Amino acid sequence: MPRFFKKGHAVPHDSRLTLALRALLYSRRIAALGTLGGDGAPFVSMVPYAIEAGLGSLVIHVSALAAHTGNLQARPEVSMLVMAPEVEGQPVHALPRVTLDGHAHIPQDGTPDWNACRAAYVARFPEAEFMTQLGDFRFVVIELHGARQIAGFGAARSIDAQELRQALAGQA
Amino acid sequence: MPRFFKKGHAVPHDSRLTLALRALLYSRRIAALGTLGGDGAPFVSMVPYAIEAGLGSLVIHVSALAAHTGNLQARPEVSMLVMAPEVEGQPVHALPRVTLDGHAHIPQDGTPDWNACRAAYVARFPEAEFMTQLGDFRFVVIELHGARQIAGFGAARSIDAQELRQALAGQA
Repeated sequence: MPRFFKKGHAVPHDSRLTLALRALLYSRRIAALGTLGGDGAPFVSMVPYAIEAGLGSLVIHVSALAAHTGNLQARPEVSMLVMAPEVEGQPVHALPRVTLDGHAHIPQDGTPDWNACRAAYVARFPEAEFMTQLGDFRFVVIELHGARQIAGFGAARSIDAQELRQALAGQA
Repeated sequence: MPRFFKKGHAVPHDSRLTLALRALLYSRRIAALGTLGGDGAPFVSMVPYAIEAGLGSLVIHVSALAAHTGNLQARPEVSMLVMAPEVEGQPVHALPRVTLDGHAHIPQDGTPDWNACRAAYVARFPEAEFMTQLGDFRFVVIELHGARQIAGFGAARSIDAQELRQALAGQA
């Protein structure tokens, strides 16, 4: 059997994309969150995110005073873009990225979901723990129901909620 | 006079933020574009952008087949987020970033605006020149009418169209 069949090539295309997606989501810490503004126009803001694989969700932590918070409370359908970093001197058009479709909800303080969110968030952002003590901040669960992954030129696909959950849980 | 008064401290706060904004927009090449999907939900996708200071606008180049293109043609109010890069091992919550409010329009091929867009785009992305020959791609002018800049903890401000234009043109 030719050598190049022994490793790597045996991994199906979709599994390789799922591994790439998992690596992207775990290696990046910030996403571009798209919410719908009160004027009906989209609004994009930066959010640090944690991953709660058990819930199949991302977790963000937002100020009640911030525009995106009011937006997602009024209209919970959100979009989140996570991008591989630009590399100086290298082309950017084929940078791997994923657009996640999500539904935002705010768990009540002290519930199991809230505890899971807090644990995931503080594990990823220990430097932000003091912010979790502030009364005007809220954890938001972004329940993922689909995604569009672009892994490079000619490598784009749509993903459903179940595949996303598997990618987050490392069962690719 | 104490030494630390001689430099830097004489620059007004707003001018420093404008210089930081200019540096951010010129040093980054990709933005998160927020458009409104046909289902009424926001949709965020990655777009490489060029700067056309004369028009006070950003320029993107999109496939007629891409979701964001249909979205911005149906609903031209868009939001664009440009973020400073994550630095490994450093906190991300205070990363400088700006959300730009814009109005998208598609100039006709061969008009002065189209020529200005093409020149700005190809100057920034010479490796993408071949894509400008493809029939199903369009230049889109994102006319900027305001922004929300976060330059760090406690350094946030709103900016109007005139200030944005000055920042792009280097007249800060």
